[in-house]
Amino acid sequence: MESNRYTRGQEALARIHGHIGEGVMDTLKDIAPDFARFIIEFPYGDIYSRGVLSPKERQIATIASLTTLGNAPTELKAHIQGSLNVGCTRQEIVEVIIQMAVYAGFPAAVNALLVAKEVFAELDKNKGSM
Amino acid sequence: MESNRYTRGQEALARIHGHIGEGVMDTLKDIAPDFARFIIEFPYGDIYSRGVLSPKERQIATIASLTTLGNAPTELKAHIQGSLNVGCTRQEIVEVIIQMAVYAGFPAAVNALLVAKEVFAELDKNKGSM
Amino acid sequence: MESNRYTRGQEALARIHGHIGEGVMDTLKDIAPDFARFIIEFPYGDIYSRGVLSPKERQIATIASLTTLGNAPTELKAHIQGSLNVGCTRQEIVEVIIQMAVYAGFPAAVNALLVAKEVFAELDKNKGSM
Amino acid sequence: MESNRYTRGQEALARIHGHIGEGVMDTLKDIAPDFARFIIEFPYGDIYSRGVLSPKERQIATIASLTTLGNAPTELKAHIQGSLNVGCTRQEIVEVIIQMAVYAGFPAAVNALLVAKEVFAELDKNKGSM
Amino acid sequence: MESNRYTRGQEALARIHGHIGEGVMDTLKDIAPDFARFIIEFPYGDIYSRGVLSPKERQIATIASLTTLGNAPTELKAHIQGSLNVGCTRQEIVEVIIQMAVYAGFPAAVNALLVAKEVFAELDKNKGSM
Amino acid sequence: MESNRYTRGQEALARIHGHIGEGVMDTLKDIAPDFARFIIEFPYGDIYSRGVLSPKERQIATIASLTTLGNAPTELKAHIQGSLNVGCTRQEIVEVIIQMAVYAGFPAAVNALLVAKEVFAELDKNKGSM
Repeated sequence: MESNRYTRGQEALARIHGHIGEGVMDTLKDIAPDFARFIIEFPYGDIYSRGVLSPKERQIATIASLTTLGNAPTELKAHIQGSLNVGCTRQEIVEVIIQMAVYAGFPAAVNALLVAKEVFAELDKNKGSM
Repeated sequence: MESNRYTRGQEALARIHGHIGEGVMDTLKDIAPDFARFIIEFPYGDIYSRGVLSPKERQIATIASLTTLGNAPTELKAHIQGSLNVGCTRQEIVEVIIQMAVYAGFPAAVNALLVAKEVFAELDKNKGSM
Repeated sequence: MESNRYTRGQEALARIHGHIGEGVMDTLKDIAPDFARFIIEFPYGDIYSRGVLSPKERQIATIASLTTLGNAPTELKAHIQGSLNVGCTRQEIVEVIIQMAVYAGFPAAVNALLVAKEVFAELDKNKGSM
Repeated sequence: MESNRYTRGQEALARIHGHIGEGVMDTLKDIAPDFARFIIEFPYGDIYSRGVLSPKERQIATIASLTTLGNAPTELKAHIQGSLNVGCTRQEIVEVIIQMAVYAGFPAAVNALLVAKEVFAELDKNKGSM
Repeated sequence: MESNRYTRGQEALARIHGHIGEGVMDTLKDIAPDFARFIIEFPYGDIYSRGVLSPKERQIATIASLTTLGNAPTELKAHIQGSLNVGCTRQEIVEVIIQMAVYAGFPAAVNALLVAKEVFAELDKNKGSM
Repeated sequence: MESNRYTRGQEALARIHGHIGEGVMDTLKDIAPDFARFIIEFPYGDIYSRGVLSPKERQIATIASLTTLGNAPTELKAHIQGSLNVGCTRQEIVEVIIQMAVYAGFPAAVNALLVAKEVFAELDKNKGSM
């Protein structure tokens, strides 16, 4: 069962973040290999693999939380990209962030919008270079 | 247009929170009447009245944010009730809160679940007394 | 000089919080007597005794900070009372809290307004009973 | 292996929190049974069961974190009691909290000291009634 | 009236931030044009245009809040510059930040002082090049 | 006695941070000389000079707190280095950070691990160049 959690987690990680997810895990592996495994097993294997909410609804919750935290721009970037991967539109992501001005304040929303802008610009650039 | 924002806000407030929303506004009116008006105009008139996201998706974002903040149990309670009002199931609300353990830590998720438990128990009690 | 800090701190504490300040210190004295002394020496002896800002301006900064933190209602209550003691009006205190909706979100502002409302009601009640 | 995590977690939970730990889990079981299981498996089965740090050192880190968060008094209470159970002295717990004034501010430290005072008073009362 | 809010907001924005304010708005306009408008209308048109507090007192509250949040250096920078524009001295800004060590901890104060240092250095450099 | 606090603080600062501590103080001295003195006197002279906890235990508490705050990477870096200086192993530091995933969320732990990785890499590089 334990190995099921890991496999299930890897699949969820790949579904949401594509190849970028593996890169983050590799960065952590030499300093904290067990923790890299925990990330795959618990958030991805246990949580993102659950039903009840659609993948899109889970990403809405995550974008809202990371915008509210306001101090995890790298994770926010990864999850904005992930939100697009599971079917959110750019407009929907922007809309979730705007709503956070109400709960987490305007600076939190502005800073998250600038992260979203960066993600969208990179995507447009990559598309342009293809 | 200004009065449109207020009317639109009152409608959104009523749609999400029912009569309880008015009660909260009344509590604020004697100490900060302008601010009570701002709450109706900006979060409800400007934000919750926008399209792009469904009312259910907006509540998912709000539950995620309030669970992450961890210091606004009264607002969380109001929005758990509001989430049920716009069509979220209890299970979906619980699921959003569980996911927040990943981003805001386990204490934030546990405390929000206890708020949800309280809301659900009150609803069951009221139903029982009808 | 050390004893100067303590004396200066006690004076600042009394000037801002009146007799209530001593009560808080007494509560801490049996569990952490050194820390009770540190509070008098550092925040009150070193910081609130400085010039540059007026006592009223210092309280504006403190109300803003405690509203933003959102998890220290007891301290906020003590400093709303303290703000009145050094010459802020109720309206000014309310105004600082309202402004915090922009930076710390609406729940933070609403909750701080409810604390202010409580302080003002207690004052009116005590005045009424004299 | 999965069942190992659960068993290991239950043992760690009992070692740190005694019978009180079970009570908290029971409270969560009817609203979010999977999450109650996750708490036993991940924080207790995966994290608190690791070596490298002594149980006492792990509690020092937890007291520091919960004091810094400032919005989880119930968890702080449970871990102050847990710290005593694994061999921390009252004075050591107080000392960790005092140090947090430097990083999380004085209100965070004062509020955590008041929680510690409550835990110690309950223990003294129970001792007295035996 | 709606257009009044926008005009009033633009005036407040210009009064506090000068031409830099427009730049920030332009950055947001392509990703979230409505939100750029909301920022002008609500924080600047509704809040900073109110009386009761002087412009200087409002900036003191904002510097305190942004220092306490600790994760919005760009906004802090803009408001340190804005504080100078409405008549705060450098020493007063530094003093507000120092006081925040008491409520938000020393790292929050140190990091805000480094932002202030950066703003002051840029101003001195620009003055030198005139 | 006041000068004792300063001397005691300088000794604690040097013991924990080596020569780097002085550098940070110098950076603050021109913008806020009194605050640079306060840092030496209060956190280092009053707190880190106390007994009860070992230097290693104090660093565990600090690493836990700074990881939980999540917005003070410079201070975290200085205290990871300081933890090594007072006898913590790399593995112990990593272990404290991993545990914080439970209380402050996974992004807080991941970001702190990346700071630790940077500190360790710099140390290895400097060792290699000797």
